[in-house]
Amino acid sequence: MDRAALKTYLSDRKSEVDRVLQSYLPGPTCDPPLLHEALRYSLFAGGKRIRPILCLASCEAVGGRTEVALPFAASIELIHTYSLVHDDLPAMDDDTYRRGKLTNHKMFGESTAILAGDALLTAAFTMLAEKGLSSTVSPKKILRVILELGSASGSTGMVGGQLNDIEAQGKDDLSLEKLKRIHSHKTGVLIRASVRVGGILGGAGPKKLSSLTSFGEKIGLAFQIADDVLDVEGEAQTLGKPVGQDESKGRCTYPALMGLSRAKKEATVLVEEALSEIEFLGPEADPIRQIASFIIDREK
Amino acid sequence: MDRAALKTYLSDRKSEVDRVLQSYLPGPTCDPPLLHEALRYSLFAGGKRIRPILCLASCEAVGGRTEVALPFAASIELIHTYSLVHDDLPAMDDDTYRRGKLTNHKMFGESTAILAGDALLTAAFTMLAEKGLSSTVSPKKILRVILELGSASGSTGMVGGQLNDIEAQGKDDLSLEKLKRIHSHKTGVLIRASVRVGGILGGAGPKKLSSLTSFGEKIGLAFQIADDVLDVEGEAQTLGKPVGQDESKGRCTYPALMGLSRAKKEATVLVEEALSEIEFLGPEADPIRQIASFIIDREK
Repeated sequence: MDRAALKTYLSDRKSEVDRVLQSYLPGPTCDPPLLHEALRYSLFAGGKRIRPILCLASCEAVGGRTEVALPFAASIELIHTYSLVHDDLPAMDDDTYRRGKLTNHKMFGESTAILAGDALLTAAFTMLAEKGLSSTVSPKKILRVILELGSASGSTGMVGGQLNDIEAQGKDDLSLEKLKRIHSHKTGVLIRASVRVGGILGGAGPKKLSSLTSFGEKIGLAFQIADDVLDVEGEAQTLGKPVGQDESKGRCTYPALMGLSRAKKEATVLVEEALSEIEFLGPEADPIRQIASFIIDREK
Repeated sequence: MDRAALKTYLSDRKSEVDRVLQSYLPGPTCDPPLLHEALRYSLFAGGKRIRPILCLASCEAVGGRTEVALPFAASIELIHTYSLVHDDLPAMDDDTYRRGKLTNHKMFGESTAILAGDALLTAAFTMLAEKGLSSTVSPKKILRVILELGSASGSTGMVGGQLNDIEAQGKDDLSLEKLKRIHSHKTGVLIRASVRVGGILGGAGPKKLSSLTSFGEKIGLAFQIADDVLDVEGEAQTLGKPVGQDESKGRCTYPALMGLSRAKKEATVLVEEALSEIEFLGPEADPIRQIASFIIDREK
């Protein structure tokens, strides 16, 4: 699979995910219209659907059928979008732009943004259950998927990571170990869970699932390092938000802690390690291998 | 079942629910400790566990085993508590006290309160899936329960009702019809869902489930009217928050729209109608009948 084929793959998968989300969510005129407009605004703000696509590619990598995994993969984007809407709030990171557009609370007001996030999170689990009831996947497997995503997003996962991140802001004595801990919770666990859910839905046995888990952990961390690097190096136009924000907000980042070139090297090594975890899988794992490399090479 | 027996029933059920929640949630020293302290602060702030108890009593009413329904009933309290924490936020109702204690954001700060609410909501669905995987209830039935609670709590249910409520604040031309709509979504749907979930877990057929649904709808509305009445009539000490808050905040209420005595009459009629819906059930429905009457008669 060359670069052009990967681009087509990513764009096809994104369209599939978007189609499922579009048809699942209540329309923008549904009562209350303001709420549905607000949650759709952030959900369809141009996200690349990396997590659902990782889930689908992971399902494919173990020989599963992606059309069966699709609605469950799509629900992960609802969780991811809710976390962005809440993270941007004035009481949290207080951000004005996201993906080149005003953040949800700047557009719709703070109370609507809080409620839009709440509604997106609730919709994720509702969608998992609803799609699960009409799926060929066994209900027990769907419960495992819900448990997987719930654990990854909750107080000991993503939400906990966000709290640790807020607590760490402005502290200049943060150790690399603590920074890794924050990121592994704030970003890493949901990426790992996306990969694992794909494996579970694709029917992976314990060995494959365990390899996918390590793979997901490593690319999750590489993804965050690449994000930090992009904040230093990226073009504001490509990124859709002002660059250099991390530094100006006193956020601790990998480039700040280990220098830019070592951070880039670290991300590359992590992706190599991730790839070796799934080396034993066949050519059906090619898409997920390509996505792993793309993760540290995007936006350039 | 006399008044004393009902009191014992409610207190026993509450203890069971509390025990399940205590052992399910990460301890207050679990990382991040601030988050777990904050979510436990609101969860164990003295709530009466009306929704889980309604769920258990509804299960009992159709001949089901309450010990099987218990973990799922308890998870409803996580959803209810999250909604209170977020409703109290400065951007929402901006409340300082709840159940006689400082609200979550007054105690822990706004960002922690938002995250504690997010974590509680996530924990509800995680708990449903996790307990479902080790339950004797079929996984398919658990998916139905998750769908039921998710739909009731989401953008077309509770979250939508909260947005409508915020939009309506300060408007003095609100019609009774609109007020009913707000309350049926903000409070009613989760109460109805609690009753329905009990029925589903107890193995209710379509006829019983449909009666329980109407029953739940009517007592949900009666509950909200009684709440409004309590705000006018109740003692601040018993209620745990300042009385007369609705009026001072320009909130539209039933007593304001229809007068205090008509509001009380309306609640009584709704409970009578609710009781007639489940008249055909046997003596095993006595607890839920008693709870229905208690709902408009509490705190006195």
